[in-house]
Amino acid sequence: MRMPTHIGIIPDGNRRWAQEKGLGKEEGYNSGLRPGVELFKLCQEVGIKELTYYGFTMDNTKRPSIQTLAFTKACIDAVNILSKEDASLLVIGNTDSPMFPKELESYTTRKAFGEGKTKVNFLVNYGWHWDLSKASVNDSSSKDNIMQNLYSYDISRIDLIIRWGGRRRLSGFLPVQSVYSDFYVVDDYWPNFQSKHLFEALEWYDKQDVTLGG
Amino acid sequence: MRMPTHIGIIPDGNRRWAQEKGLGKEEGYNSGLRPGVELFKLCQEVGIKELTYYGFTMDNTKRPSIQTLAFTKACIDAVNILSKEDASLLVIGNTDSPMFPKELESYTTRKAFGEGKTKVNFLVNYGWHWDLSKASVNDSSSKDNIMQNLYSYDISRIDLIIRWGGRRRLSGFLPVQSVYSDFYVVDDYWPNFQSKHLFEALEWYDKQDVTLGG
Repeated sequence: MRMPTHIGIIPDGNRRWAQEKGLGKEEGYNSGLRPGVELFKLCQEVGIKELTYYGFTMDNTKRPSIQTLAFTKACIDAVNILSKEDASLLVIGNTDSPMFPKELESYTTRKAFGEGKTKVNFLVNYGWHWDLSKASVNDSSSKDNIMQNLYSYDISRIDLIIRWGGRRRLSGFLPVQSVYSDFYVVDDYWPNFQSKHLFEALEWYDKQDVTLGG
Repeated sequence: MRMPTHIGIIPDGNRRWAQEKGLGKEEGYNSGLRPGVELFKLCQEVGIKELTYYGFTMDNTKRPSIQTLAFTKACIDAVNILSKEDASLLVIGNTDSPMFPKELESYTTRKAFGEGKTKVNFLVNYGWHWDLSKASVNDSSSKDNIMQNLYSYDISRIDLIIRWGGRRRLSGFLPVQSVYSDFYVVDDYWPNFQSKHLFEALEWYDKQDVTLGG
């Protein structure tokens, strides 16, 4: 079976899940923690080398603060939980803003935990616009090396993006690393994550051809 | 009905269509002309303001020359046919390369034909990498204006991308203008275009919410 090297995860649908349960929208994020860790473990078992989670964006921080506090806490908890695993962790986002949680500052250079087996990237207070804006402040920027002109330069090209919650769009997720990604959508909300979602995505991916634009 | 302002078109599957008919791969491109014009007319009728076609990419030009000649000719023909319509035409691509057809050089600044009603952009010898590389050669590049740092700055944000041929990926199609685009995939090959493909995509789009990352 042809496996992706790098999977991008868009864990959407937390708020809709909470609303369907009669909870406040902000109460969905905490229920995204179990899926995040389960998915990590499954990916490690099947040999995925790199995993990138879409935590929250600069756009997302314009939401009511009861929500921003809830998703920020969920991201901090998720990174702390993953630091107990064999993971090489990196948090990428705009640290020049008060919306970037201080608790995650120590993760903004890649650090290995345990055996450091799986690369895990976590986008926190990320913005596609912010990511691309490094080019214009970087004097040594080179025409031939777009990747080095990104704040997210340490995140590699993504083979497969899986989005939960039914929406078929990237919503600003790493525009450069996503140019050739195969895009798989799961209709279930992220808190309802099941291992079969991942396995179905991997089976689907196996049937795609890889052309890298050729 | 909520309509997209700008639709991106990825007309894929020409080669697979030709092969299924027992033709040479290169014989599929010419059969993509009728769909391109029909789609344009339908979009104009329903009031779409801007349309962008993915013609061919710099990556594509690495294919056997019998294919590159065929898809280059199809793009030239398509632009010439559209210049007989009420369209405001723009061809965007790397003109510094011999793969950019001389016949289309006069279209690389936007030009109105007839009543110039619908903006039509055509990507010809386009590369996402090339597009983003303008930032590094532009001294006046501004952090706050990513769009002005693109060669494709005259192409606006895309609301809906429709891809024919079943593949669920962007393949380098305008990474910046696509960050928030809803992505609809038609399994049929592009030469088998039918008006119902567009109408089904528009009905689907009507049911999506618009958040622009918020």
